[in-house]
Formats: sequence, structure tokens, C-alpha cells
Amino acid sequence: MPYRAPVSDFTFLFNQIVGLNDVTATERFEDATADVIEAIIAEAGKLCDEVVAPTNRQGDLTPAVLENGVVRASPGFGEAYKAIAEGGWVSVSASPEFGGMGLPQAVATAVNDMMSGANLALQLCPLLTQGQIEALEHHASDEIKELYLPKLISGEWTGTMNLTEPQAGSDVGALRSKAEPNGDGTYKISGQKIYITWGDHDVAENICHLVLARLPDGAPGTKGISLFMVPKFIPDENGKPGVANSLRCVSLEHKMGLHGSPTAVMQYDEATGWLVGSENGGMKAMFTMMNNARLGVGAQGIGIAEASYQHALAYAMDRTQGASPIENGTGAIIDHADVRRMLASMKADIFAARAIALACAVAIDMASATGKPEWSARAALLTPVAKAFGTDVGCEVANTGVQIHGGMGFVEETGAAQFLRDVRVTPIYEGTNGIQAMDLVARKMMDGGDAIFALLDEIEGFAEQAREKMPELAEPVWQASETLRETVEWMVAQGNLNERFAGSVPFLRGFARVLGGYYHLQAAMQEPDSARARLARFYITRLLPEHTGVLAHARCGAEDLYALSPDDLAA
Amino acid sequence: MPYRAPVSDFTFLFNQIVGLNDVTATERFEDATADVIEAIIAEAGKLCDEVVAPTNRQGDLTPAVLENGVVRASPGFGEAYKAIAEGGWVSVSASPEFGGMGLPQAVATAVNDMMSGANLALQLCPLLTQGQIEALEHHASDEIKELYLPKLISGEWTGTMNLTEPQAGSDVGALRSKAEPNGDGTYKISGQKIYITWGDHDVAENICHLVLARLPDGAPGTKGISLFMVPKFIPDENGKPGVANSLRCVSLEHKMGLHGSPTAVMQYDEATGWLVGSENGGMKAMFTMMNNARLGVGAQGIGIAEASYQHALAYAMDRTQGASPIENGTGAIIDHADVRRMLASMKADIFAARAIALACAVAIDMASATGKPEWSARAALLTPVAKAFGTDVGCEVANTGVQIHGGMGFVEETGAAQFLRDVRVTPIYEGTNGIQAMDLVARKMMDGGDAIFALLDEIEGFAEQAREKMPELAEPVWQASETLRETVEWMVAQGNLNERFAGSVPFLRGFARVLGGYYHLQAAMQEPDSARARLARFYITRLLPEHTGVLAHARCGAEDLYALSPDDLAA
Repeated sequence: MPYRAPVSDFTFLFNQIVGLNDVTATERFEDATADVIEAIIAEAGKLCDEVVAPTNRQGDLTPAVLENGVVRASPGFGEAYKAIAEGGWVSVSASPEFGGMGLPQAVATAVNDMMSGANLALQLCPLLTQGQIEALEHHASDEIKELYLPKLISGEWTGTMNLTEPQAGSDVGALRSKAEPNGDGTYKISGQKIYITWGDHDVAENICHLVLARLPDGAPGTKGISLFMVPKFIPDENGKPGVANSLRCVSLEHKMGLHGSPTAVMQYDEATGWLVGSENGGMKAMFTMMNNARLGVGAQGIGIAEASYQHALAYAMDRTQGASPIENGTGAIIDHADVRRMLASMKADIFAARAIALACAVAIDMASATGKPEWSARAALLTPVAKAFGTDVGCEVANTGVQIHGGMGFVEETGAAQFLRDVRVTPIYEGTNGIQAMDLVARKMMDGGDAIFALLDEIEGFAEQAREKMPELAEPVWQASETLRETVEWMVAQGNLNERFAGSVPFLRGFARVLGGYYHLQAAMQEPDSARARLARFYITRLLPEHTGVLAHARCGAEDLYALSPDDLAA
Repeated sequence: MPYRAPVSDFTFLFNQIVGLNDVTATERFEDATADVIEAIIAEAGKLCDEVVAPTNRQGDLTPAVLENGVVRASPGFGEAYKAIAEGGWVSVSASPEFGGMGLPQAVATAVNDMMSGANLALQLCPLLTQGQIEALEHHASDEIKELYLPKLISGEWTGTMNLTEPQAGSDVGALRSKAEPNGDGTYKISGQKIYITWGDHDVAENICHLVLARLPDGAPGTKGISLFMVPKFIPDENGKPGVANSLRCVSLEHKMGLHGSPTAVMQYDEATGWLVGSENGGMKAMFTMMNNARLGVGAQGIGIAEASYQHALAYAMDRTQGASPIENGTGAIIDHADVRRMLASMKADIFAARAIALACAVAIDMASATGKPEWSARAALLTPVAKAFGTDVGCEVANTGVQIHGGMGFVEETGAAQFLRDVRVTPIYEGTNGIQAMDLVARKMMDGGDAIFALLDEIEGFAEQAREKMPELAEPVWQASETLRETVEWMVAQGNLNERFAGSVPFLRGFARVLGGYYHLQAAMQEPDSARARLARFYITRLLPEHTGVLAHARCGAEDLYALSPDDLAA
């Protein structure tokens, strides 16, 4: 069963649910008409279906390898990457000034979703480059921009982000890499970085490493960190890759999945770097990159969920096992109630997660197009939810995909297991989902909950309008929103952040469940008596009720939790 | 971090929670005093810690291989298997008549749990043998018993079960393997079987295949299936392995996990077989084996959960990352609220799942010791719950174990990922968890719900007694039991089984959640102000509330689900 990019779902979500027309009505995005966007999505979908997806299995079977100090990518990846770059798909949302398409982030998010469904291991390469492009656009000097952005945007060069060190994972401030000024505007960068995605490879002619390091007088912790551009080959006077920089890939990780994505340990030995942003301003620049990447990783989860769903659906439509338990059934296992429940849950959650991710992207676009703080607040609020829920749905759907295959799901031959192995890292990288949840209940509630309350007002206003036409769907959504509102009120009343953190992951889950209810209700109202309305009914009656349990958990606070001491847990 | 068998947890559960003293008070099990059982568990635990667990990683790194028609087991597996067999651990609950220990199933379940935590891939070999021993004890002729049971019980020979064929998985009745009488009391067995666990290997001198096949006049479907003993080497007149039978391992599956467990495609070409049980009575005999195996597979899930939990706890106690967010913390990531929440959830769910499995085992023991139908009904009721919840907890806990490790969880080096890959098949084999749930709401409710209602009466009676001392724990358990009771009433009122099946998996989940609340409440009452009581509080306030959402789902019925047509799902 080949992957088919869900082009019509994006069109529906853009036009009927997340309000992309508000984005395209702005001056900034006025060229991006609905027709243009639809054509772009269709074209990207075609590439994903025909060029990218066929390479996915090879990446798993023939991992990237480090040989003689150079990483060789999996078979077919070089050609597929070239097609991605030549199509301009690395830089959908990048500025046209340096060759980008300049399209809304919502379109880039849809492309990331599709490309991840087609081949997540390969898609990581352009995704990291996208983040680097955005960081440079916002923070780099004109000289660096002019030198690097055209190459990154065209995909001739690729980008990486170098944060993690063995002792510095979620705690970035613990990093030890050093930068020493050379006196000529350049710096000597030294240190070891781990988990560097596509840290070395042979699919493009140069690799641009953005590296966090500390200047000699840099303060301890995150405040003393600066960001540097450290290219694999130092550009010569013509902007071509010149002499090799003093850096190398030391080893590749042996991972549970994503075998086609080389995850490198990188060693910098007085490598030449250029400052990006201000001295000691590295975290700010890196956060630009990470925020972009967080939404992108959410889209990765959704993309794998889509691919896994299509794969399981095809199996369930084909596999016969026992007599059909229903009249006029297909004869295949999709006729069995529990198989249909699994498939419906997968599809309903994909819709919810995708709507959240695209609503987040639209908020980012509206913020950049209008400069209005309420849009920035909405974007900031939804980013951790899009990342965590998108990747959780990715894992859950891929897990259900294995289950639908029965014994065949555990056997690697079918590919169902690969989706699960590949997607498993997405709740971890770009800030674990636990970190996302902490961000949601702490930083994103520093406004006293205003951004969430504004969203809940919107949800309840819509549910009230919908109540007359679809009371049995509108009422549970309204009620769930009220329960969420009470939980937010409880959260913002807790001065000690640990009281919030103790229930932050269940809170984020409940928040996403309620948001999913809102978008499904909108879908049902837009197209009553359609497949979408029937799916909305499934979600609202069967999946939305999860919110009561997780929001009750969210309000439990820290005392009983910390009463369980490390000794208790080891008892 | 090496595995440590949780010996004291078993002692507590046996003596304080599941009532093993009722079992040992029966005449049948009078030799199994509490002291004897404690010594046996400690001895088995020692073997698991010192001999079995050290082989686990090798099994993953160096899979079993098929070479020149013979399967060679992973390094170290032969020696570890020998130690298991020589210690008598294959046959903890087997009849002493042929050399078994004759201990309660509860003890065997604990041993299975520990051995699975130590090395699941290897443990499958004795687990399958145990099932075969039980099937032979109940259904085989005296001649077969005398020939095979001593060898199986001593572990000199191992057993397999051969049900699945490519077209016949959950639908066993679709099988095509044939049996033709030779006229001398033996049969010619022909056909291909897939997914045969430990179908071939070099750790024991003979392999006894129990094969389901159809006699020439066998009816279609499950009613025309017979069971045959088909040994790899036909025993000679001295009962030693003699001439090779006409069967072979054609290939091994390449699986997501359990690389150390050879999963074979077996080919039978007029192999010589002996009938076990009556002609056309194969399903009945096979169900004996499967019921045993279902509880055993539940214990596998719990065992992996335990191993994964210990592994993650050790990491969380050792890994430092950022300043401790609490006063007098350890300085390691266990101080972070969300990490502690994850660990507490793992431990609380392991306790719940283990209590359910051991309560099921005690019911089996009481049924066999007393012959009372209420115990048989309790055993039948709890078996699908023990299997499905135990394996779901296995997957969830192993998944959380990966998450606690952060990036290190996705890298194979730590071993966290192996637990997740290994355990993923347990919700699939021995009847998928969907099949378990269907069994629970259909066959196990053919009594109109009597068996469940009796259990709910017990739970509510206990909660009422506990209310005075621990109202804040007893009340939610009582309430949850009432919600479950209403759901059971709804279920048994549905004449059309599809109405039940549509919510059967959420129902089983809610059932397990409530049972878990009951056992945690008992633990808190037994040892107030202890680690167990604090864990019970965590479970009851934070995890038990899940039951509302899943039981609401369980009561939704089939109509809205089937309204989602295959076309809708493909839209």
C-alpha cells in the first residue's frame, strides 16, 4: 500500500477550519491565494507520493553509515533529496529575498506533514535546514545571510543544530563547548556535540552547523551561551565550499528507528565559526530555530500517523479472517467492530492533531503578518500542544497500526513496525513532551491564563452557536471547555510551579482533547451528514470523554506526588 | 542497572492481597506453606537475577539464526535454559506424578513474571512447554503422558503450539493442515504453520510440536479440528530421540523485537503424529493450553514492565540535569515532578496488573483445588483481563521507560528501547487484546454478568468497610465500581453482541482500572502510612479517574461506529 498525501484534508482544514483565508487576506501573504496554495499542496503531495515515499523502506533496511570519516546516506536518499531541493520544498516559508517561496507557515507545515509521512528519516534533513534558515533570517548579519541563505534555501547546503552535549540535554545551560575570538571577527569553536541529526552526509555539497558554545567571559548557565555558524567546508571567495573546517563526525548512533537519518556525534577542534546574533545571545537565536522546529516535529508525528493509518486501513480492507459479523459487510476485518473502532480512533485523532498544528501555524502567520500580540500569544500557546499532541498521536496511531496487523505487525516485513520505531523519538527531541507541558503551564500561563481563556471563549462561543443545530455534539464540547477552564483557573492560582508541573502532562492532554473537540465540531457544522460529521460524532462521544480523567489528574497538585519519595519508588 | 526480581512484592501480594493462604489451606496444596513458597520465589528470583538476566542483551544483538536447516540459539541461551530446566522452573505447577513441583499456579505466574523481566525471548521457551504440559495432563492418553511428560517437565524436551497458518490467525477454524490416519494409531500430518515460537532450536535434545490439523472427514471450521503430538525426533523404544520426523523449519521471521526467540515457519510433510484428546476435539485441548498461556503472557507484560521500570528508575536516580526543583532533593532528574509522575505511574500500574494476574492465578488454583464453580467463573472472568491489561501495561511502562531516558531511550545502547520492542508482541499473540475484550463482554457475560457482579459486590463491600478509615480512597473506588456496574448492566442488556464489541476494549480497560483501585485500596488498608499506601493514593486519585472516559466510550454501542463506513474511513 503506497502512501498517498492527504491533499483534500489540507484543503478542507485550510478553508473551512483554521481560517487560512485570514492569512491570505493580509498584505504580506496576498500572493498566496487559495488556488495557488491548493496547487502547491497538490504538487508537494505528488512529490511525496512518487519520489519520497518509495525510499522509506530502504532507509530502514540500509542505514546511513560512517566510513573513512564520511557518512554515506541510505540508497536513493541522495536522489530524493535532490528532488526535494530542486522543487523548492526546503524553503516553502523562507523569504523570497533569498529565493524562498515566502508562503505561509501553514503551507510549510502541511508540506512537512506530507513529507514526514512519506519518509521521516529523510525529511529531517530539510526540516533542520528550515529551522536554520529562520534563525539566520532573524539573527544573522547581512554578510552571513547573503552568503548562506541562498545556498540553504536552494537546498544546495543543509543545516544542523548543535545543542546537546552528554551532560547537557534538556538542561542546555550545562554545555561546555567553547568559543575563543580569533581577533578577526571569527572564533575558534571546540567541543563535542551529540545527537546531531544529519550531522554528516553525502546528499549535499556543504553542511552548515549552528553550534552553541560559551565565550571565555560567558556567564554560567544559559545566559552565557552564544551561537555560531560553523560550516563543514569554509566558503571561498566565490561562495563555494572551500577548505575543510576542523570538525568531524566521530560516530553515528545505533537507534531504535530512523535508520536512514544519520545521528552524529560531532567533534569540533578549534573549528572556525562566525557569530550569529549577539554575544551571549545564543539561546534567543536558538529558540527561534526551536520554535519553528517544534511545530515541525508535531507535523512529523501527524505525518507518520497518516502513513501508518493508510497502511493499516489497506490491510484491514484486504485481510479476511472469519465470517463478517455484519450484513453487507466487506468480508474483511474492517467489518469487525473493534478493528473499525481502532481505525476510527486513528483517523479522528489525526484530524484533531492536524487541526491543532495548522491552527498554530496560522497563528504564527497572522502574528508575522499583522504584528498583533494576540496572535503571537496564540502561536506561543499552541506550539507546545501541537508538538506534544502531534507526536503522541504519532506514537499512538503507529502503535494501533501494528495492532491492526496482528502478528504481521510485529514482523518487520510489513512496514507497520517501522512507523512505530521511527516515530518514537518525536516525543523526545526538540524538547521532550514533558518539557512542552511544563512550558504550557508555566511560561504560557505567565499572562494569568489570558491566552487560554481567549481561546476557550472562542470555543464556547462556537459551541453555543452550534447548540441549536447539533446539541448532542455542541453540548459535550461546551462542557469539556468549561472543565478545562476550571482547570486553568486552578493552575494559574498555584504560585508554586511544581504544583502545576505535577499535572502538566495530563493537563496538556486534556487541553488537546478539548481543542480536538472544537475542531471536530466545526467540521461537523461545516459538512453535516458527511464522513467528517460522522467522524466528529465518533470523536466527541468516544474520545473527548478522556478529558475528565486527565484534567482531574492535572488538578491533583504536587504534595501527594512528592510524598512518594525516591525510597518509596525503589521499595 | 541489573534486573532484581521483586521478591518482596510477590510475598506481599500473596499474603496480604490475593489470598494465597486460601489456596495453601486446601488439601491439594497443603505442602505449599507460606515459608516454602517464599523460599521458592527467592530461589527463582536469584536464578533470574544471576543467570537469566545477563543473557538478555545478547539475544537482541545476536538473534537466533537458521543455518543449514537448523536453528542456532543466541549466545548464552543454551546455558541459561539448562539452568532453568535443571532448577525445575519449567514445571512449577506441573503434576508431581511426572516430576513437576505441583505448586499453585500463583507461584508459577510469579516465576513467569520474574523470568520474563529477566529475558522474555528466552522465557518463551519454557512458557510454551508449560502450556503443552497442561494440555497433555488434561487430554493425552496415558501412553503419551508417560512418554512425554517426564521429558517436558524436566525440560530435556521443549514444547511448541502450532495453530496459525497464513490465512488462519485469529480465525483458527480456517486452517488447512491435514491429518491422515496411517491405520496403526498414528497419523500423517501435512501443512505449513507460521509464527511458531521456538519452533526449532539447539537448547534441548527434542522438540514436541502440538499441531492442529483436520482429519479427512473433519467438518469445516473449528469443529473439525484435531490436535496431534508431532515430535521433531520420534522417540525410540527407550524413549530417547530417534529418527528425524518429516518436518522442518523453513525460515525465521525478522521481528521488531524478541530477536533471541526463534519464530519459525514450520513445514510438515506427512510427518508422523499421535492424536491428543479425541478426534475433532482439538480446539478444546488447545484452549487448555491457551488459557494457561494467556495468563502467562499477561505475566510477561508485567515482567517486562518491572524490568523497564527498574531500568528507568536507576537512570532517573543517576542522571542530573539542571538544578533540583525541590528542597532536599537528590539532585537527579527524579526530583522533577513530571519524571516522578512517570515513575509513580509505572509502579502503580505494575502493582495493579500484577495483583490482577495473581488474583486470576489464585482463582485457577481454587477452582482446581475445590472444584467450586464460582472459582472457575472467577478464573474465566479474570483471564482476559490479566492478559490484556498486563500486556498493555507492559507496553505503556516500557514506552514511559524510553521517555524517561530522553534521547538515550531512542539509542539502542541503553537497553530501554529493547524492552519496548520486545514487549510489543504481547498484546498480539495468544489472542489479540481485542479478542480478549470480545471474550470478556461475550462469553464471560453469558452468565448475565453474575461473575462480574459477584466481584463488584466484593469490591464495594470492601470499600464500605474501608470508608471509615480511608474515606478519600474508599469513596472513589466505590464510586468507580458503581459506574462499572452500570456499564455491565448496559452490556448484558445488549442482545446484539456487536453493541458490546463496539466498546469492548475500552470496557476491559475500565474494568482493569477499577480492579486496580480495589487492590491498591487493600494495600493501603493493610499498610497505612507506608510506601504502598502512598502509591495507592497516587493510583486512586490520578489513574483511576481514567475509568469515567473509557466506560462512557464502552456504552456508546455500535450504531455510530458502523455509521462510519469503509468509504468514510478511506475518504
